[in-house]
Amino acid sequence: MGRWEPDARGRMARAALELYAERGYEQTTAADIADRAGVTERTFFRHFADKREVLFDGSAQLQAAVVASIAGADDAAPLDIACGAFVAAAPILEERRDHARRRAAVIAANTSLQERELLKMSTLASAATGALRKRGVAAPDAQVAAHTAVGLFGIGFERWVAADDGTSLAEQITRALADLRQLAGTSG
Amino acid sequence: MGRWEPDARGRMARAALELYAERGYEQTTAADIADRAGVTERTFFRHFADKREVLFDGSAQLQAAVVASIAGADDAAPLDIACGAFVAAAPILEERRDHARRRAAVIAANTSLQERELLKMSTLASAATGALRKRGVAAPDAQVAAHTAVGLFGIGFERWVAADDGTSLAEQITRALADLRQLAGTSG
Repeated sequence: MGRWEPDARGRMARAALELYAERGYEQTTAADIADRAGVTERTFFRHFADKREVLFDGSAQLQAAVVASIAGADDAAPLDIACGAFVAAAPILEERRDHARRRAAVIAANTSLQERELLKMSTLASAATGALRKRGVAAPDAQVAAHTAVGLFGIGFERWVAADDGTSLAEQITRALADLRQLAGTSG
Repeated sequence: MGRWEPDARGRMARAALELYAERGYEQTTAADIADRAGVTERTFFRHFADKREVLFDGSAQLQAAVVASIAGADDAAPLDIACGAFVAAAPILEERRDHARRRAAVIAANTSLQERELLKMSTLASAATGALRKRGVAAPDAQVAAHTAVGLFGIGFERWVAADDGTSLAEQITRALADLRQLAGTSG
């Protein structure tokens, strides 16, 4: 392994996940990851700012998909547009459920990785808020709709990773929204 | 300053906030904070695990108040119980709006502090979920209600810190919930 420059980035991401699962995050260095991926440590740091970032390489792609989906959505209620964008982006993650599952277990085992994941979700909520604002949604509504959608995505993702019944991520997000609608409608 | 042992913890928290605002978080050491608070560095580390934790000394109190409020609430819909708990806990923060405002500015300026804050919010959501479960709320509903309530608290808090119109934090949370109810009711 490790002679090909193509997909060095992907190889490093896979190597990091393997090593974090085998030895733990704290016990793995950037040099270990580079070594397993067949690249130099210098190459590692050309691609990733630190050994946390290597696990979040898909965040930018997910965020771009969500923002594009919000921008291109047909007219609808803001919460539907925001949640619909996560449902539309779900196949990006669904393609690799085993990977997502192993990654989630590694993140759950380390506070520092949890913090980075939460920051990525927060950045995603801000980006979704901005995309709704660009459609002319008022600031308070855009903020509530985007943050709610990201929260439901997080819950749907957690359920999708945990469940073994073949329910898709898209369906889990849709169900979480239905749960919320029922909860929000109960009184008030 | 610094001769009194009583409230050493509060003095360190205030000193940290002052120094982070003056010099920046990265440029401040635990020794600097201890020095300004009139304690030894050893005392600092007896109270706080690291120089991030010193800014989150109120988290445990907030969480305890939210959990107690959920446990003691009259029967109501889960989302109302969860949001009601944050409204009930709001005075803890309202007492010190200037402090909350300066603290929010310091946190916004540093990624590492943002991550810690997001982790505290995530822990709070898990604690609120657990408190709803203890009341007999089904797991999916408890999770959605608790995470939604924490999200609305976050939005309400941000608006409260930003606004100068005298609106209380409790009122901001209540308004954010009303926004969500309207957004969730628009279609679906």
